Amino acid sequence: MQVHENLNLAIELLGTVAFAMSGSFAAMQKRLDPFGVLIIAFITSVGGGTVRDVLLDVPVFWMHDLIMCTVIFITCIFSMIFKSIENKFQVTLFIFDSFGLGLFTIVGIQKGLNADLHPLICLTLGTITGCFGGIIRDILLNRIPLIFRKEIYATACIVGGSVFLILVNYSRLSYAFVQISTILLIVAIRTLAVKYHWQMPKFYGVEQNSEM
Amino acid sequence: MQVHENLNLAIELLGTVAFAMSGSFAAMQKRLDPFGVLIIAFITSVGGGTVRDVLLDVPVFWMHDLIMCTVIFITCIFSMIFKSIENKFQVTLFIFDSFGLGLFTIVGIQKGLNADLHPLICLTLGTITGCFGGIIRDILLNRIPLIFRKEIYATACIVGGSVFLILVNYSRLSYAFVQISTILLIVAIRTLAVKYHWQMPKFYGVEQNSEM
Amino acid sequence: MQVHENLNLAIELLGTVAFAMSGSFAAMQKRLDPFGVLIIAFITSVGGGTVRDVLLDVPVFWMHDLIMCTVIFITCIFSMIFKSIENKFQVTLFIFDSFGLGLFTIVGIQKGLNADLHPLICLTLGTITGCFGGIIRDILLNRIPLIFRKEIYATACIVGGSVFLILVNYSRLSYAFVQISTILLIVAIRTLAVKYHWQMPKFYGVEQNSEM
Repeated sequence: MQVHENLNLAIELLGTVAFAMSGSFAAMQKRLDPFGVLIIAFITSVGGGTVRDVLLDVPVFWMHDLIMCTVIFITCIFSMIFKSIENKFQVTLFIFDSFGLGLFTIVGIQKGLNADLHPLICLTLGTITGCFGGIIRDILLNRIPLIFRKEIYATACIVGGSVFLILVNYSRLSYAFVQISTILLIVAIRTLAVKYHWQMPKFYGVEQNSEM
Repeated sequence: MQVHENLNLAIELLGTVAFAMSGSFAAMQKRLDPFGVLIIAFITSVGGGTVRDVLLDVPVFWMHDLIMCTVIFITCIFSMIFKSIENKFQVTLFIFDSFGLGLFTIVGIQKGLNADLHPLICLTLGTITGCFGGIIRDILLNRIPLIFRKEIYATACIVGGSVFLILVNYSRLSYAFVQISTILLIVAIRTLAVKYHWQMPKFYGVEQNSEM
Repeated sequence: MQVHENLNLAIELLGTVAFAMSGSFAAMQKRLDPFGVLIIAFITSVGGGTVRDVLLDVPVFWMHDLIMCTVIFITCIFSMIFKSIENKFQVTLFIFDSFGLGLFTIVGIQKGLNADLHPLICLTLGTITGCFGGIIRDILLNRIPLIFRKEIYATACIVGGSVFLILVNYSRLSYAFVQISTILLIVAIRTLAVKYHWQMPKFYGVEQNSEM
């Protein structure tokens, strides 16, 4: 179990770094000042996990030791420095956002399984953990939430999470292998979807005036 | 008490169906893909109750059995099919939103009473339960929240909830009759308000520039 | 300790009044009806503290007695009356917002210290308590959140909160004196920043298109 726990912590830390990067870059793109960038980085990286822990009624993961806050702070400083030598915000932001999505979806599902919840509830919890930080980031920065733009986003969480649950329950593959491969599957779905403009079918019909 | 519990569950399920419908239609109107529609339907229908349960520090109502998630999923599929034969989004959306509002306001007040809170706090909790899902839906879909448009909305919750609290405490009418009639009262206030353009008085004066 | 508790309650009540005023004025500026104004006032004044209490997993401060709701209700009525004789919304809104920010930041830090959290986590919690109500208010009213406009805002919380933590731990000044002076420090930083257009350095470079 020790190996699992270390791997889980590593996955959670990597997800935190990825979303802190994605939050920092999105905030710098909107030209916020350094404290604003720090706040957006913080909310993006802890948002999903905080909602998950509040729903599970377990202690919120970043409140009882300093490691997450320290990691976010260092990532944020690093992003600000990195920014001076790198101006391709959008690709960077996209890559980190995809990795955060994959990592946090799997962490969220695992926490649900640990609390003995039904696999479908765990899948919901994983989707919330993966998507929520990015949704709040986009609302705060007044961007159209990535999740509701045309490319596949939540679909990647749901597909990857389902594969994770099936493999964990019905295959004999090692747990660590299943974790890592489903994380990469989510990143791959998201990346390929954007690259090749994959879209889910939409509902036809003209958009009507949204005012009653 | 068994009768009450069954009636309460029925009310909560109906509210869930109503808001899942309202969320699905609003999301299809914005041309989201099927998973996006499912996510918005889910958030709209569990949003208010989730905030209520987190505030009360009781287990979140949809996390410990599958019934709510199943109901939302089926409602969402049904809405997508129904959509092909029905294009009058706005009336449909409006009706389901009004019923969800009435049903969830009364559920929220009851949960507050069960936790021995003061009636005024219960009224606040009922308003939160009724309005919150719709507010989050509208923020996510980038619509002007229904609650802040010109027609009576939260006012219907507050009036209906107050009548409920008065009748429960000071009348001899049966509990089930009080529940159902106050739910219909909220729906009626909301419907008539929209039909006849009832408005609360506004604050006069020209709107000033909101930038400091 | 009795003196501290009374002072803390006084600070929390003053912060509630300040944010209820700020919420009422912002909502009247957007020409909401009286119930809409009441709801925005309520959310603005309890929002930050509610998130703080949910994160700490302690009972939510306004749910177990009526004092906060009563204070918000009276403040809101008073703001509506006061509005008829006073049209300078923006200055009034600004002043109350600044006081609420200072008062709630310090309350948030204290609650974190009471829960034996690390000072840096307490500082985070103080910033959340101070800023969150105003962020939700601005999102609901569809204004650009004050916190992300050009003037110093969260920076004032972070600086004032840090001074508070340093003085509490390393100085011999009385606790009450430290509380009051750091609250005034936050108000002063915020006020002077707006008056003299202080800004934190921004990230240079042209804002890029935020669509992927």
